[in-house]
Amino acid sequence: MYKISLITGDGIGPELSESVINILDAINDKIGVKVQVTKLEAGDAALKKTGKALPDETLDTIKKSDACLKAPVGESAADVIVVLRRLLDLYANIRPAKAYPNMPSLNQNTDMVIVRENTEDLYTGMEFDMGDTSIALRSISKRASERIANYAFITAEQRNKKKKVTCVHKSNVMRKTDGLFARTCEQVSKRYPNVAFENMYVDACAMNLIRQPEAFDVIVTTNLFGDILSDEASQVVGGLGMAPAANIGDNFALFEPVHGAAFDIAGKQIANPSSFILSAKMMFEWLSTKNNDKSCSDIAKKMEDAVYGIVKDGIKTKDIGGNKSTKEFTQNVISRII
Amino acid sequence: MYKISLITGDGIGPELSESVINILDAINDKIGVKVQVTKLEAGDAALKKTGKALPDETLDTIKKSDACLKAPVGESAADVIVVLRRLLDLYANIRPAKAYPNMPSLNQNTDMVIVRENTEDLYTGMEFDMGDTSIALRSISKRASERIANYAFITAEQRNKKKKVTCVHKSNVMRKTDGLFARTCEQVSKRYPNVAFENMYVDACAMNLIRQPEAFDVIVTTNLFGDILSDEASQVVGGLGMAPAANIGDNFALFEPVHGAAFDIAGKQIANPSSFILSAKMMFEWLSTKNNDKSCSDIAKKMEDAVYGIVKDGIKTKDIGGNKSTKEFTQNVISRII
Ligand SMILES: CC(C)[C@H](C(=O)O)[C@@H](O)C(=O)O
Ligand SMILES: CC(C)[C@H](C(=O)O)[C@@H](O)C(=O)O
Repeated sequence: MYKISLITGDGIGPELSESVINILDAINDKIGVKVQVTKLEAGDAALKKTGKALPDETLDTIKKSDACLKAPVGESAADVIVVLRRLLDLYANIRPAKAYPNMPSLNQNTDMVIVRENTEDLYTGMEFDMGDTSIALRSISKRASERIANYAFITAEQRNKKKKVTCVHKSNVMRKTDGLFARTCEQVSKRYPNVAFENMYVDACAMNLIRQPEAFDVIVTTNLFGDILSDEASQVVGGLGMAPAANIGDNFALFEPVHGAAFDIAGKQIANPSSFILSAKMMFEWLSTKNNDKSCSDIAKKMEDAVYGIVKDGIKTKDIGGNKSTKEFTQNVISRII
Repeated sequence: MYKISLITGDGIGPELSESVINILDAINDKIGVKVQVTKLEAGDAALKKTGKALPDETLDTIKKSDACLKAPVGESAADVIVVLRRLLDLYANIRPAKAYPNMPSLNQNTDMVIVRENTEDLYTGMEFDMGDTSIALRSISKRASERIANYAFITAEQRNKKKKVTCVHKSNVMRKTDGLFARTCEQVSKRYPNVAFENMYVDACAMNLIRQPEAFDVIVTTNLFGDILSDEASQVVGGLGMAPAANIGDNFALFEPVHGAAFDIAGKQIANPSSFILSAKMMFEWLSTKNNDKSCSDIAKKMEDAVYGIVKDGIKTKDIGGNKSTKEFTQNVISRII
């Protein structure tokens, strides 16, 4: 029995959450993997109700759970997710970008993972006003750079595809901070002689993601560049509606769609839940590795095949020009899993 | 008579410089606009020869000229261009991204300009080591934000196209620095009631540049985001080979391709000189406005039409799959101008 905490979020968050809960219920009933889901509040609605975007109770329950699923959160997103990433030391933000058949993509052979450092850079909130000027501190440490580099190389080994790590930075301008990051990645690369290593400036990377997305395997980069490049990469393979993310620490992990709360299409049951379903898939993969539980990796495989299959069959939700409601789409996914 | 200083650069820089000098010579001979070009050294070769990437003599000559053309520079690029931008207070980096017929682009209706703040952000070189951690200072001032915002709105008015300014930042994470930038742009927007104004987070912008590039008109953003987004945008409209940039201050301006020195194709006379020719075109536009000299805007128009025409006719250099050498391409451009 796995205890899963689930932040239902704002905007389309509750609809996506319902979709994933229905899938988890079906798995519970029909397949041997038992999960117990606890719904939690965080975000704009929680802020309005409790005065805190991340209520203490939510944090406590997350800490007692085996893993957390987080639906998109609205304007207060940073007060929820950036805080959780740092508090729980979820240092690796894993963002796959893979082309799916029947989804528009710039290149059908695209299959990459962005490994984004998730605890430092300009995300530490250290900012000051000095007269008419504001200053933010961008901090990069050897320790954080080293562990994220290791994570990236292990990912490249395990994926067993191009076996290449591209280290993305701007060390020609930020010689000390990104110099440290690039140097550390280079040092770590020596421990993985079977994985190729290359450096790329962030501006060149933003260009190459369009020019030749199929050339990438694993990208390792700092927090803010990872934020920008992963949104870009998800659009390269057909949109944020398909983009999941895993926030992984040594003992705990949190899974969420890359996209936001999409208030403009909320409450209409037209949103594509695939990104959140694929986030749950990543959760089962992580649970499988952590607990050495093959039934979890089986479920993950089934979930991915279901999403892969439904997309291949051209079945789409209304937000991306299809004719299925979020609920109908979810039922179809469930029928492919169980 | 305009005195033009020209940094010949590294890699493909000298070839592109020759191309532009030949065009300027032809203009000199056959058309009423007189320009006198002084070739200058800066970059890797200059560093090796003189010990300085930006020799004093180069800087002095630039300061005495009416405008500067700069070909791409190699590994020492930051020591040349970032220094020049700050020393000469060239606060506005103008990077158009426009689809050309017969050039691959994600959307043929794309026609935008990125107005990049060019003097602060993480480009001030303020970095420190503290034990195992390095810190960079990201500084954003009200003054610099205000003048770049004004520049963006004036650009939108003068372009007279969609009349929209999109302010790109990450104020949900960098509340003080990007809060200041976004707030200042918003305040400035009030002075331009005929121009629409919208805010967009940088990650969403990186995505939307692929999803709907034709929706943008003028983007105003901070230095590093502008660096990343302009490389991305140039690829959206078919590649860096067509992407010019203007670095503009109150009294002086410098024009350069967005791309780098491309050492891999250097010395082969296969590089596409269009980005540097279009940079020279932007120079004539700027000279025209500054000196109220219509002959310069006529030349600019002729140069743009020539590049537009040659591309439309499917004539390409070898680096992008065509059969023309840099010299042949240049001759063809000249024959269309004079
Ligand atoms: C909401 C925001 C703080 C967050 C980030 O910048 O990390 C989001 O864009 C993401 O990528 O998860
Ligand atoms: C060479 C580098 C310092 C420069 C920058 O980052 O500004 C370049 O990428 C550019 O965009 O002009």
